[in-house]
Parts: sequence; C-alpha cells; structure tokens
Amino acid sequence: MSAARRARVREAVAARELSALVVTHLPSVRYLTGYVGSNGIAVIAPEGTVLLTDARYAVAARGQVDDGVEVVVGARDLLGDTAAAVTRLTPRDATVGVEGAHMTMNQGARLTALLAETGDTARTLSPQTGIVEGVRAVKDAEEIAAVRRAAAVADDALADVLAQGVVGRTEREVAWAVLEALHRHGAEGASFETIVAAGPNAARPHAVPTGARIPGDTLLTIDMGAVVDGYCSDMTRTLVLGDPGPDLAEAYRVCHRAQRAALDAVRPGIACADLDRVARGVIEEAGLGEAFGHGLGHGVGLEIHEAPRLGREAPGTLAPGMIVTIEPGIYLEGRGGVRIEDLVAVTEDGAEILSSHPKDAPPRGGE
Amino acid sequence: MSAARRARVREAVAARELSALVVTHLPSVRYLTGYVGSNGIAVIAPEGTVLLTDARYAVAARGQVDDGVEVVVGARDLLGDTAAAVTRLTPRDATVGVEGAHMTMNQGARLTALLAETGDTARTLSPQTGIVEGVRAVKDAEEIAAVRRAAAVADDALADVLAQGVVGRTEREVAWAVLEALHRHGAEGASFETIVAAGPNAARPHAVPTGARIPGDTLLTIDMGAVVDGYCSDMTRTLVLGDPGPDLAEAYRVCHRAQRAALDAVRPGIACADLDRVARGVIEEAGLGEAFGHGLGHGVGLEIHEAPRLGREAPGTLAPGMIVTIEPGIYLEGRGGVRIEDLVAVTEDGAEILSSHPKDAPPRGGE
Repeated sequence: MSAARRARVREAVAARELSALVVTHLPSVRYLTGYVGSNGIAVIAPEGTVLLTDARYAVAARGQVDDGVEVVVGARDLLGDTAAAVTRLTPRDATVGVEGAHMTMNQGARLTALLAETGDTARTLSPQTGIVEGVRAVKDAEEIAAVRRAAAVADDALADVLAQGVVGRTEREVAWAVLEALHRHGAEGASFETIVAAGPNAARPHAVPTGARIPGDTLLTIDMGAVVDGYCSDMTRTLVLGDPGPDLAEAYRVCHRAQRAALDAVRPGIACADLDRVARGVIEEAGLGEAFGHGLGHGVGLEIHEAPRLGREAPGTLAPGMIVTIEPGIYLEGRGGVRIEDLVAVTEDGAEILSSHPKDAPPRGGE
Repeated sequence: MSAARRARVREAVAARELSALVVTHLPSVRYLTGYVGSNGIAVIAPEGTVLLTDARYAVAARGQVDDGVEVVVGARDLLGDTAAAVTRLTPRDATVGVEGAHMTMNQGARLTALLAETGDTARTLSPQTGIVEGVRAVKDAEEIAAVRRAAAVADDALADVLAQGVVGRTEREVAWAVLEALHRHGAEGASFETIVAAGPNAARPHAVPTGARIPGDTLLTIDMGAVVDGYCSDMTRTLVLGDPGPDLAEAYRVCHRAQRAALDAVRPGIACADLDRVARGVIEEAGLGEAFGHGLGHGVGLEIHEAPRLGREAPGTLAPGMIVTIEPGIYLEGRGGVRIEDLVAVTEDGAEILSSHPKDAPPRGGE
C-alpha cells in the first residue's frame, strides 16, 4: 500500500529537482514505510527506499515495513547511517531534500558534516517544506477507513458518557470518563487531551478541564477524539444544559447555522479560504465575528493536526480524499463558548460526514 | 522560584559569550517562566525575560508566569515577536543563542531573516546544545518534591494493580489498569505509555503490550510512571511468576544484584560512565553482558528522559539535586527479559530512593 505513497513522494521530489528526500518526521516515516517506532529515518530516492533504525527496534521494524523498503539497523544515532544511505543512493553532486519544518539545526549541521566526510563529494542539503505533508493530505481508501473507524469509536464513547449524565460531575471526571469509554470501545488512546469545559471555562478554545462541577443552565463543550490503527478522529459537541441565557443561546444558534453552512459547502475544488469564509460570514453577519478567533478547521489523519488548513488566509483547495474538521466557534469572555465540530471526508462530488453523534438542537427564542 | 533558574541560565549564557538565549523547547520554557501551554517561546537576556505567546493563551499565560517575566501576546507564529524581543534586549552586534537540538532548520532560517529585517544590524544566531538542559539536570527543592509525589502515586497505583492479580489477564488489560490506577491516585496522566510484557515479549526493552494473556511460570515486566504537577516518575518492576525456568531465574538474580550494586554506588561526584560500569560489571561477570543492550539510566523531571544520561560513554558526574533512574536490564531473545528500575535523587552525601514499591525476591536455586 505504501508503494503508491512513495511513488507520489518521488514525483514531488523530482518536481523540486532533488535527488532524494530524507524523512525525519515520524508520522511521515510510518506513512511511507510502515515502521511504527520512536527512532526511524527514511531515505526516499529514485533507486529505492531505506529505513534506518536501531537494534531495539530491529525485529519489530523488519516485521512492520512494507515491500520495497530496505531496513538498515545501526547505531541509535541514525545520522551516520543516513549519510551512508544517501551516499549510496544519490549522485556525487546531489541536492538532497530534508524536512526543514522538522529537522533540527543540529541535525542539519551534523548530516552536512557527515556527508562531507564520505569522500570528495559536493552533496548539499536543501530544507523543504510540505512534501510528504502534501501527499498525506489526500488519503487513500485504507486511511479513510481507519479514520472512519476512529470516528465511530468516538461517537460510541461520547454516547456512553452522556448517558451517564454530566451535570454535577467535575470537568476532569467527565474527561476521564471519555478516555475510559474510548478505551472500552477499542481505541488505542485519545487523539489529544479531551476538552471538557463548562460556562466561562468554555470561552477558551484550548480550555483545560478543571475540578469545577458542571452546573445546569449553561453550555458545555466536549472536544474529543480516538486513535484507531494509528489514525485520529476529532469531534466537538456543545451541550445546551437547561437555559444558558440569551447570549449563549444566541451564540449556539449562530454557530450551529455557520457549521451547517460550511458542511453544505464542502466539495472538491472549493478554496480552503473560501470554505472558512462561508462559516465566518454567518458569524460576522450576526455581529459575532470578533468572537470566532481561530480558523474553521484542519486536516486529520496520522496526526490530529495536519494539512490542509482551513482559515482566512489558508492556501490551496479541497480535493477528494482529504479529511478535514469543520469547527466554527464563538467565545464570549467571562460567559462561555460554543464550538461544533464534525469530521468530513471530501468525496468525488461532495462530502461524507464521518462523525455522527447528534448535535443539540439550537435553543428556541430570540430568533 | 524560576528567578533562580533564570539566573543559572544567564550565567551559562554569559559563559558562552552570548547576548541572549532564545528558548523554544516547551518544557524548558515552562521551567524558566512558569508558562504551561503549547505555543510559547522565551527570550532570556541580561536585562530581562520575555515570554511570547498568542491570544489563545493570553489570559492563562498572564496567570501562570512568575514574577520578573514579561508576557508579550501576538500572532500565532511567534518568530516575528521573538525577533522584536531579541532586537529590544540585545546590542546590535549580538550573538544570540538558540537551542540547536530543538529549533528546526526552517525556524532558524526565518529568525535569521527576521532579525536582518529589523534594521542595519548584524545579529547572528548561534545554535547551542544543552544550556537549559544542564541547568534542569540539577533540581531544586520544589522539583524534587514534585517528583517524589509522582513516584508515590506510581507506587500506590502499582500496588493496586498487583492486588487485582495479573496472571490470565492480557498485557493490554493490565496496562489499562495501570493508567486507571494512576488516575485514581491523582496523577495528571502517565509519564509514558505503560509497558506490560510477559515471556518473550519482555525480551524487547521497548515492548508494546499485546492482547496475549499473561501466563504463569515466567517473568513479567511492568515499566510505568506518573505525572504530578508536571513532573514525571519512572519505575520498572519485573515480577517472578511461578517458576520462570533456570535461564530467566538466573537473569533475574543477576539483574537484581547489578541494580543493588548501582544503587549503592549513587553519590555526588561519581562519573555517569562509572556508575553504568558498576551495574554492567556485575552483568558481564555473569556472562550476560551482551544481553544488557542499553544504558543504566537517565535523568527524569519535566520530561521522562532528560539530562544526565548514565551509559558506557556518558559524560559528566552526578551532583546533588540530580534525579536519575537506575535500570539495568537483561534480555534473552525468544525467552524473556528482566529490568529493575528505581528513581533516585542524588543527595549531599548519597542518594534517596524515590520509588518504594517492593521488588520480587530473586528466585532461589542454581546460585
């Protein structure tokens, strides 16, 4: 399966006139080779793919990698073997791509020095941005199936937690209940630290659950996701508890409309910035634009945040196979907040919504 | 509290003839400023300390930082504000230290360009290694107390799990039970993914728990830790289940002796490499040197792996306030493994063992 992925990366590498790409970002190493472990580097060249790891992972790595990937087991510091692999796989005057957004300055300096030591060559490193990320943004069928499974586990887990009741429990207790339910439904873990935030705490997009008891008559935001077979899901529901008061009720209604409008607009070919504008327009029209201080969404896959990005100035357009979140939010400092988020796969002619847990109906009145 | 830490970093910065240090590694940012969040950079200069973050963390950051730290809230990409802070706090011909082991090549190139844009200056970046890490290696009283609490929570959690019985449960079930017990005893989480490995799976130092049921008559390794107030603990116990057979029994006895010898040797002034040699000598003498394929231990604090390192070629010596693991292991491919690990604080005249869960007695016979 990863052979097709490597072919797409090789095309991008050739298009940038590079002789090879050294992949150091672990999720990308996994994506391109199958290797799952904490110490691995992949070298992708026209003539072959080499995975470098150390003795602790030798047995596991040989079992994990896909056909067409050569495993080299060496010292724990992989850069020496990386230089050797690059030397073997590229011409003497090669320009070798490295992942500039991930490789550290020390690694870059050392790899340059090691390449120079391998003889009278003039290989140079060229920091690149977004090569594997761009390929990973478009998921293959196996990946979409894995994210779908992760989303289903999160749906089931949230249903369990809400069936237990949440009012009167602390935010931390509910966050733990989410993790426990994710585990029970078969997740390898949570895809990020679950957010459970009621009342004023929900005015922070990145709220941390507290020891405060969840009151009635407010909004409660739960943002959660599962990891299944290495792939993440991401979903937010804001619960309308009793009567949250007119400000928060109105914020919920506006956010709900904005999210629906954006979901309806998801299709191949729409610009990521335009999709953001669909939701933002609804919120601005209601006079709440200032209260929506983040982008509309982001890609999800092996990582919880990956390409593409949906935001005011985000580049690019949606393509079939992309999986993104649609998550407008409205945050009222000191009072509370609302965010409604679904996970969506872009299809050939529209979108498949992967998260299916029902959303609370907008509170009535004042519309 | 962090003022004393910043003073120690300033001394190290001055000793390397730098005008300032840009700290991008988040655990070090937290250590030096008190900021707890996922987007922060600290600039440490003789004239002051600036913490840069974005609007999502503005309220939280202002509440978290210690006296003497100026908070600047700006764009989500912090490098522009970082360049401005560096320009304000350093002379025009400054050499500015950056964390070469953490700053990416892209960040380095961008910060260099941004500094050049700030006017007709000739500030240069100088990648540095280990400045904050060196300071963090020696813990203050508050840190030692936090690690002690984390170790106590892990002790209590392991006792609970073992009281439930482990034979016949799957490795994954027991790993989950550990997480559940850590949570119940007040941990913020596990300090790393718990390892539960029985029989041949324990021959891998970094074993991943499987769905296999734990049999009787073997060795079972449980490697676990808690996070409390941001600080980690780390402890491994190998349980002797029934009769593990002569090879594994002998491996347990040797590892137990090696660990005891190393614990007895912990004191200020001993070289990190010499301490490794104490344990390794016992294992080599028993003819099992090849089966101990990793270093003796590592520092523990805000991160589960930090300075100092205890290994064959590790530099440096122990000093009061350091907290390290002592964890020799013996791994017999296809059969099983043993690792026994305690967390130890170096004191003025010896050591305080922070992990107190009892170790299984060495199996009798064959000695």
